[in-house]
Amino acid sequence: MRNLTMMTDLYQLTMMYGYYKINTHKRQAVFDLFFRKRNVNSAYAIAAGLEQVMEYIDNLHFSEEDLEYLNSLNLFDNDFLDLLRELRFTGEMYAVPEGTVVFPDEPLVRVKAPLIEAQLIETALLNIINHQTLIATKASRMVYAAQGGSVLEFGLRRAQGPDAGIYGARAAIIGGCSATSNVLTGQMFGIPVKGTHSHSWVMSFPDELSAFRAYAEAFPDSCLLLVDTYNTLKSGIPNAITVFKELREKGYEPVGIRLDSGDLAYLSKKAREMLDKAGFPNAKIVASSDLDEELIWDLKAQGAKIDIYGVGTSLITSKGNPALGGVYKMAAEEVDGRMVPKIKISDNPDKVTNPGYKKVFRLYNGKGKAVADLITLEEEEIDISKPLTIFDPVNTWKRMTLYDFTARELLVPIYLNGKRVYESPDLMKIQEYAKSELDTLWEEYKRLKNPHVYKVDLSQKLYDLKQQLLKEYSMK
Amino acid sequence: MRNLTMMTDLYQLTMMYGYYKINTHKRQAVFDLFFRKRNVNSAYAIAAGLEQVMEYIDNLHFSEEDLEYLNSLNLFDNDFLDLLRELRFTGEMYAVPEGTVVFPDEPLVRVKAPLIEAQLIETALLNIINHQTLIATKASRMVYAAQGGSVLEFGLRRAQGPDAGIYGARAAIIGGCSATSNVLTGQMFGIPVKGTHSHSWVMSFPDELSAFRAYAEAFPDSCLLLVDTYNTLKSGIPNAITVFKELREKGYEPVGIRLDSGDLAYLSKKAREMLDKAGFPNAKIVASSDLDEELIWDLKAQGAKIDIYGVGTSLITSKGNPALGGVYKMAAEEVDGRMVPKIKISDNPDKVTNPGYKKVFRLYNGKGKAVADLITLEEEEIDISKPLTIFDPVNTWKRMTLYDFTARELLVPIYLNGKRVYESPDLMKIQEYAKSELDTLWEEYKRLKNPHVYKVDLSQKLYDLKQQLLKEYSMK
Repeated sequence: MRNLTMMTDLYQLTMMYGYYKINTHKRQAVFDLFFRKRNVNSAYAIAAGLEQVMEYIDNLHFSEEDLEYLNSLNLFDNDFLDLLRELRFTGEMYAVPEGTVVFPDEPLVRVKAPLIEAQLIETALLNIINHQTLIATKASRMVYAAQGGSVLEFGLRRAQGPDAGIYGARAAIIGGCSATSNVLTGQMFGIPVKGTHSHSWVMSFPDELSAFRAYAEAFPDSCLLLVDTYNTLKSGIPNAITVFKELREKGYEPVGIRLDSGDLAYLSKKAREMLDKAGFPNAKIVASSDLDEELIWDLKAQGAKIDIYGVGTSLITSKGNPALGGVYKMAAEEVDGRMVPKIKISDNPDKVTNPGYKKVFRLYNGKGKAVADLITLEEEEIDISKPLTIFDPVNTWKRMTLYDFTARELLVPIYLNGKRVYESPDLMKIQEYAKSELDTLWEEYKRLKNPHVYKVDLSQKLYDLKQQLLKEYSMK
Repeated sequence: MRNLTMMTDLYQLTMMYGYYKINTHKRQAVFDLFFRKRNVNSAYAIAAGLEQVMEYIDNLHFSEEDLEYLNSLNLFDNDFLDLLRELRFTGEMYAVPEGTVVFPDEPLVRVKAPLIEAQLIETALLNIINHQTLIATKASRMVYAAQGGSVLEFGLRRAQGPDAGIYGARAAIIGGCSATSNVLTGQMFGIPVKGTHSHSWVMSFPDELSAFRAYAEAFPDSCLLLVDTYNTLKSGIPNAITVFKELREKGYEPVGIRLDSGDLAYLSKKAREMLDKAGFPNAKIVASSDLDEELIWDLKAQGAKIDIYGVGTSLITSKGNPALGGVYKMAAEEVDGRMVPKIKISDNPDKVTNPGYKKVFRLYNGKGKAVADLITLEEEEIDISKPLTIFDPVNTWKRMTLYDFTARELLVPIYLNGKRVYESPDLMKIQEYAKSELDTLWEEYKRLKNPHVYKVDLSQKLYDLKQQLLKEYSMK
């Protein structure tokens, strides 16, 4: 397993050294990992990456080689390097399970650990969670747009390096993609892999029909043919139909055809007609060609006859919004033996953080639909036997009272006293869970354009604490 | 070293199997890796990623575990899996050295190998070269915009997974960044790492001045202070100056300050004045805050007093254009024992490929400036003792005759008969080379907006071959 301990920003190490020099490095500190309002037009995100965070934490340690390198930077003294040699994660971590629907401003991960440890892990946690959450969310939007059609992840060649391809495909599956073209991801996570042939296959034969025949010969029971190398309607589909008939005579049913260029709405309708007429109403039509969620939605609206969408660049790079922008902010710190809530002030009110050691509840109505999330302090509980009034943390006159409701705590323990207490479910189980999570959301939160903003409110106690800290700050 | 042999699209394996079934898998084939016109407003790209391609190729082999997994897919027969067990790269690869300035439509990598090998490696080659070339190019644009100022890579937390951070930082250095915050990249490639402290450092002290003092104490000879946690002009800079004076009394000179929010043009000018007036004209001003090349250019135009630019998301994700879109296309194939040039036809004329086993020359004028690239067939040579007339491959009436010129072949041998014959230079040497490459380009090709389009022409022989193949195709 790869050791990513050194995959951190240098400033984490310089700060760790600074804390060590004034002997505050063992103080307990609480950090929240969350994202602010999404840049894309999405009301929600699908949390992903926790399994890789656990691999990172389980394996957290500096090797002798690492310490030698750090020594060569001439920034740190030997006692500090000795301290790093022994460093392991000894703290607590709570997180939302992968596949959970999450919203801006609520913690996806909460770390409580000695300052030196909590600081070190910031960069890797952000890197991993930001990336996979971004791609899982993008995938869920594409699956939503496909309205029951399947979405396949095909982007490895356009991904930002190997991990972006490997873990991007993993995240795409969490977000609802049916399969990936990436064989390594399939092997690592036991998920379906798909793929047939490219244009170069067809080009390496004297003619298209021979190419199709050879492919059908090799894969008689999984024959899917790419029909746009020369001319989709005049040669590709007719040749495919010829080969499909030959297959049927041998007792096999074809899988279908793939369109990879041209007017997909028009071509898919024509292809459907031609296949139906030839006696292949069950042959699937796969389409690819720079698709994204908006194009998929448009194709659907035009009545395109596409069963399966293959998506590449737009999904694997989250084109249009290539970073989630999650942050990791201190929420409390031990001072003289007790935990003191901390707030980060900013001229931009959206960037002021929520102070304290907190938890997050999702509130559901009687029909199981999510109505709001409520961030509370750790010691608070929600009594579902009584009506609950929640309010907007900015426009506090906007209030809502819940009567028949249930509440679920989103953050679950992952590490306690440095010991891992959580096992990652199988990836297909995570996908199932993500689907069930999306089912609890009203359509208004899922639509592609101008979705409704989901309520993430603060408990009265947390609100009061925040106001008090803001007041203290303004009187400084 | 990681084995990425399985990091391929399933369709490479199904095609390899198909070729094996008809016994064409050992045929020699030539593939070119190139990109078409850039999506971003850049006339050129900086080639990068070759070192990681070599690691991949050197390590190319299927493990028993891989073969078991492939067997479990029920797609391949045992003889084929036996063939894969023995598969190594036995072919030839030519490529442009990392740091070379490259243009659309010319091969960055040329592979000649048995079809089965050439097909397998397509996905990994594209993944690695697409990613690093993308980021090196983006970095070079930022360095260009900074007009002599330094650019630091700070994007690890927003990168699309670990590799995107690690190799993205590597590529950023090739493109001209002075340093990275990524400690692992620094360790792996022996390049400068930079970093100081974050807002959370300041927040964990009772006040900003104590935070600055503690930092100066820990790093007296590399003290750079982040001054925008509370109020940049009223507290941050005055407190920094207080600490800088204390440092000087102890015999140390401060490095400078960092601005991370607010109006950077205004604040940097004010900061410069305040630092100068206090006796610190050599203290550097570092600025960060969602910077990209256009903002850096604008800051320069406004006379901002920024010495060093820290860039995050925009660089590490190549925001606005998160994929290079490089492709890998068959250019020739052995048929009945001789190499036959191949062309990929498309309705879109830009997507028609250049056929044949080719090489690329860069042509320079007497002053060493690049004037055009010329793609020729392998057997062609350029006689610089005679005038050379080149012509636009679309608008063939656009002609230019070169008199006093030199020519340099861009593709160099990397593998011959499966044996690596190339050693990757040290990363800082690659950076130097990339800089010298950019020096051969006129400013018109480097400007950020609407750059001049660089000529990539075809030799008469190659042009004729292409026309002939197009004619043959249209008569089919």
